Amino acid sequence: MKKVINRPEDFVSEVMEGIELAYGDRIRFLDGDRRILLSKYPVSNGKVGIVTAGGSGHLPLFLGYVGQGMLDGCTAGNVFASPSAQKMAEMIRACDHGSGVLCLLGNYGGDKLNFSLACEMAEFDDIRTETVLACDDVASSPAETAGKRRGVAGLILAFKVAGAAANEMLNLHQVADAARRALASTRTMGVALSPCIVPEVGRPSFHIGEDEIELGMGIHGEPGIEVHKMLSADEIAQRLVDTIEADMPVPPGSEICIVVNGLGATPLEELLIVYRRVALLMKSKGVSIFMPHIGEFATSMEMAGLSITVMRLDEDLKRWLSAPAITPFYTSLNK
Amino acid sequence: MKKVINRPEDFVSEVMEGIELAYGDRIRFLDGDRRILLSKYPVSNGKVGIVTAGGSGHLPLFLGYVGQGMLDGCTAGNVFASPSAQKMAEMIRACDHGSGVLCLLGNYGGDKLNFSLACEMAEFDDIRTETVLACDDVASSPAETAGKRRGVAGLILAFKVAGAAANEMLNLHQVADAARRALASTRTMGVALSPCIVPEVGRPSFHIGEDEIELGMGIHGEPGIEVHKMLSADEIAQRLVDTIEADMPVPPGSEICIVVNGLGATPLEELLIVYRRVALLMKSKGVSIFMPHIGEFATSMEMAGLSITVMRLDEDLKRWLSAPAITPFYTSLNK
Repeated sequence: MKKVINRPEDFVSEVMEGIELAYGDRIRFLDGDRRILLSKYPVSNGKVGIVTAGGSGHLPLFLGYVGQGMLDGCTAGNVFASPSAQKMAEMIRACDHGSGVLCLLGNYGGDKLNFSLACEMAEFDDIRTETVLACDDVASSPAETAGKRRGVAGLILAFKVAGAAANEMLNLHQVADAARRALASTRTMGVALSPCIVPEVGRPSFHIGEDEIELGMGIHGEPGIEVHKMLSADEIAQRLVDTIEADMPVPPGSEICIVVNGLGATPLEELLIVYRRVALLMKSKGVSIFMPHIGEFATSMEMAGLSITVMRLDEDLKRWLSAPAITPFYTSLNK
Repeated sequence: MKKVINRPEDFVSEVMEGIELAYGDRIRFLDGDRRILLSKYPVSNGKVGIVTAGGSGHLPLFLGYVGQGMLDGCTAGNVFASPSAQKMAEMIRACDHGSGVLCLLGNYGGDKLNFSLACEMAEFDDIRTETVLACDDVASSPAETAGKRRGVAGLILAFKVAGAAANEMLNLHQVADAARRALASTRTMGVALSPCIVPEVGRPSFHIGEDEIELGMGIHGEPGIEVHKMLSADEIAQRLVDTIEADMPVPPGSEICIVVNGLGATPLEELLIVYRRVALLMKSKGVSIFMPHIGEFATSMEMAGLSITVMRLDEDLKRWLSAPAITPFYTSLNK
């Protein structure tokens, strides 16, 4: 495995510079700080700000969703590491338009701790904040301790919902509530086929046998729930959907959003083959799919594998999901 | 290397079924034939039809660009193999809205031969056609025999230009001319880091050493011009841009479009690091970049590597490139 990089210690800084060089017409760094990315799109006075933060190495997550209709700001850490509370606080201040800021993040220790410190700092400046955690990864903890689950690809749908709710000029509590509703009906499970390499480490971060896959592995290589001999696409789809449905039933007649997310090295063709099986399974149960998302939304650099996210919908969630959004890596319009 | 598939012989058919299940609101198969994909978007009577065809295994190329503002139709072959002339002819008939059809394809023997037969068949039905070939891969033949060059990622920009020109209700000759102008000022060069696996073959289609890369390799694994010890991202960017500029100078003051295209397994972070270097090189020469494209546009399934495309622009090409388009894998709007 080879990486197309320069000095490993410049990895994050050069990625960020690349983003600015490519999309500088719509995003900017706060005071030139390459770890704090802000949207340049005009914002209505009084709109609730939506921000996130997290480690690098998951593009398009998190940075790629800063723009119009999703995130107002994102603070990036080193690869797979939380950014500092100080930088998060600066971002929160920059993203307050008078009505407070929603911090929407994955349930990881460092990010949680630093955001809670950052929110305290922001409160000194009379900026109200609310925090909503994504805990969508069903494989990371049993239902009894669902609050310990990690946040993975479901977070993108929560960004979309919160961004749209904020654009409807709902207040901070209502926007936070929309994000909570989105996440309460969202579950994800993944499977890894190969490891990834953290640039400054330079070797694979874990091992998967040549004919094996790891069900339930996290997007930083956190151990899954089962190492299994290689399965077919249909078997993988069935296993992931079954585990999700055991945790969150999807009754006949319901409408859902599906994300089939590639972890980095898995071809789009294979994601479509998995989506095919998920769609046929849902069809056979009388469940209809709204706005399928198939592609790379939350990756682990060159890790091979994929995750399936299921989000149960109601009319509000459908309206928020389908509202227009334009960001460097997510563009959606009312057709 | 593992593939998330079912039976290898069902690979293409299941990919196509996945596309229909996901995007059936905007694309359809001609008479249920899973090899002939058509746009369902409304088309003005008299608009020139734009079609392509090619082997499977390159998604989003070719299928992913069928929609509004790009392709009206696409015929898909087996992995890395041309579809039949018969199916191409059926597609051409379905995409004629009274003003003829532009066949826009990569310069590959099978596709060329079959399209020329298909155009003859269409002429029996009094459908006018023109054919334009993409030969943008500078590594595949020297300048003296530029007509032998393969078509690679530059083809996407030609789809965009031709689609926009057709939407301006230009006639067949003018639309073909727009595509020719686009391709005459477009050059691409790629680098491969790892091989890919054709599903029905089941083993890597070529070998690249653990610390080596192959400069100029084609998107079907066609041999490149040089096997080299692993290079840094900056060195790769410099090598590819230098080779392109030796073939097509980019004078100070000019405007260009850049595509940094991932071949399948290369992380978005690495594409951005390469883009950074290309953008800085161009900036230092007084060349400005319009509409950078960074992501996966033309892949070889799980091949690792990337290509850089440079397109020199004029006012017409800028207008056509930036016209709105909506397809399953390419959405662009006037901001």
